[in-house]
Amino acid sequence: MTHAFETQTRFFEFDDPADPLVLCVGPPMPRFTLAYETYGRVNADRSNVVLLYHAMTGSQHAAGWNAHVPGLDGRWTKEMRAGWWDDFIGPGKALDTDKYCVVCANYLGGCYGSTGPASIDPATGLPWGSTFPVLRMRDVVESQMKLLDHLGVEKLHAVVGPSIGGFLALLTALIHPERVHFVVSIGAGVETTIDQRLLNFEQVTAIEADPNFHGGDYHAGARPEMGLALARRIAHKTFISPEALRIRARAEIVSQKPPHGWYEMNHPVESYMLHQGRKFVKRFDANSYLRLLDAWQWFDLAKEARATDLRDAFRRCKDQEFLIFSIDSDHIFDREQQRKLVRPLKAAEVPFLWITVHSDKGHDAFLLEPRLFTPHIHEMLDHRDGT
Amino acid sequence: MTHAFETQTRFFEFDDPADPLVLCVGPPMPRFTLAYETYGRVNADRSNVVLLYHAMTGSQHAAGWNAHVPGLDGRWTKEMRAGWWDDFIGPGKALDTDKYCVVCANYLGGCYGSTGPASIDPATGLPWGSTFPVLRMRDVVESQMKLLDHLGVEKLHAVVGPSIGGFLALLTALIHPERVHFVVSIGAGVETTIDQRLLNFEQVTAIEADPNFHGGDYHAGARPEMGLALARRIAHKTFISPEALRIRARAEIVSQKPPHGWYEMNHPVESYMLHQGRKFVKRFDANSYLRLLDAWQWFDLAKEARATDLRDAFRRCKDQEFLIFSIDSDHIFDREQQRKLVRPLKAAEVPFLWITVHSDKGHDAFLLEPRLFTPHIHEMLDHRDGT
Repeated sequence: MTHAFETQTRFFEFDDPADPLVLCVGPPMPRFTLAYETYGRVNADRSNVVLLYHAMTGSQHAAGWNAHVPGLDGRWTKEMRAGWWDDFIGPGKALDTDKYCVVCANYLGGCYGSTGPASIDPATGLPWGSTFPVLRMRDVVESQMKLLDHLGVEKLHAVVGPSIGGFLALLTALIHPERVHFVVSIGAGVETTIDQRLLNFEQVTAIEADPNFHGGDYHAGARPEMGLALARRIAHKTFISPEALRIRARAEIVSQKPPHGWYEMNHPVESYMLHQGRKFVKRFDANSYLRLLDAWQWFDLAKEARATDLRDAFRRCKDQEFLIFSIDSDHIFDREQQRKLVRPLKAAEVPFLWITVHSDKGHDAFLLEPRLFTPHIHEMLDHRDGT
Repeated sequence: MTHAFETQTRFFEFDDPADPLVLCVGPPMPRFTLAYETYGRVNADRSNVVLLYHAMTGSQHAAGWNAHVPGLDGRWTKEMRAGWWDDFIGPGKALDTDKYCVVCANYLGGCYGSTGPASIDPATGLPWGSTFPVLRMRDVVESQMKLLDHLGVEKLHAVVGPSIGGFLALLTALIHPERVHFVVSIGAGVETTIDQRLLNFEQVTAIEADPNFHGGDYHAGARPEMGLALARRIAHKTFISPEALRIRARAEIVSQKPPHGWYEMNHPVESYMLHQGRKFVKRFDANSYLRLLDAWQWFDLAKEARATDLRDAFRRCKDQEFLIFSIDSDHIFDREQQRKLVRPLKAAEVPFLWITVHSDKGHDAFLLEPRLFTPHIHEMLDHRDGT
């Protein structure tokens, strides 16, 4: 594989006991690190920055090639090396690096270099584990605003996010309307649906029930890989359409060996899922996953924006412009979720475009099909008056 | 609660080393027990018998009130006492006990009195546990044919089954066309779908990953309740529509205590699901559940009927008549599954009716809404020539 450019993760070390990061639930954090990357050059007045939020288990490494991020205890596996949105970021691509400087940071609470449960708690010299603060989506947003401050970026040309990253993009626009012009949300929504909630809760149980989990304090021993792998399987099936799944599974060989114990698999789709689970546990930390599931369970765009309802919230956004994407085969963030976003945008008279793209690939289309999204992103970010 | 009649579970003890039950995978079984109940009186020529198959975690106790089944180690909980199809069986009901004798038996491999993994293996004097034979749907059918032989029933007036019971009803009709006249299948299908397969496989992992499971040999210690409860939750959400779930969950109080460890629930639907899981583990055996999941994973109507395809299989059924029900809000056995049944029936020129009922309740409508099914069942069973 050849890549146009190599990238490097940088680390923003926030350290300000006088003005700490105020969390929604946990105690204020005077110190934390965010791992981030940038693509393209910032212009003289720093008005061309695009903040990109990754999806739940993504990383700061959105484009290009990054062979190594230090200090990750083996989690920077081969599959992490190519940027997760490489087809969307670069010269002439959806986020055009000839025009913009794209910034992407690993979530606070994540496990790719930002401070999270796998990081060392300076107070003890041991990984935070179960003692890492409870997080809400708002905390992730606010931590990244500290990064923008550090970078000297007052107002973003755009904030962009797919999936959970869409939650964060929307929330950024509502909490800091003065800091954002264009808002691009792909396959996201305004709240946790019942379906999402049940699936998330199943995943929580899968992780917490793993005998190696030890309430989150597993750093000295074996990791809760079985539970985390099952959690991943529970989620993964919702990201891809049944058709795409069938095609992907075709190439799988059914193992002859029972994977856990008594039960013998009999279909390639089972091997495929088992493989997905096993691959995932190598690259992700169970505590980080649990923190993000928890933040998702509590997500409510209006509440986190501290508004009485969404129409009220969007009234703050008169100078913004929203681009909302639906994916027609997305069953986990279905069109009904985006409708709930569009209704109050309209009521608040905020300019927006709502585009439904057709894909056979389900939710994952946001990773796989740049052609579906690029023209509208170009049109909005490049050709409209962004001042 | 008052019930029209009290019922008693009876036990059919098969014991015939010379002509054992031949299993698809495991060794022949010279001895086994089936727990069964009957409702209504058999007529002089034994031509009025209706065989009813229960759904996956159901029991032989389909109608009336049964306060106690002996030897079940606490699994006959309060919720088992009312017959699971009480609204469908009785004088004037869908299966009219003034006309028919309804027979319902607990599956071989089950845990309500039929021989299963929780039963004592006579060879060791201990529960079978992990050594219980692998089962296929065909084995469940064949074991019940032995029961019919014992009861002196040569030909059934009808075979009826909802959900997995529908798989078994269809399979009975195909393996023994000469023993069945009418066939009623509710919310079933002809094969395991990808969705079902993934959900079943998740459940297998949930059970096998429980540290108390010990490969199935947990009889001497704690039971794998956490894993089995998670499995139940994974399945339960698919049986009910999101609307019905929302209504049911409304009455739940959110527990203040984290259910497993770190994570705190924040929505009644989580409490509801937790409660469903906890209730289930009291009444079901994890090994039985695993055996049935496994049989489901391998289910393929044509293959188990030992036919090259379904059209070929249904050519055996010229003297039968099929009544196929779809439930429009059923997302786990959706209409596409019944379409796959109807197509070969038509091609093989077998008389059939395909009825789609509307319900807000999802798959579970087969338990809850007798009004949707009763008229067509009456019309077919009572008013057509069944000879």
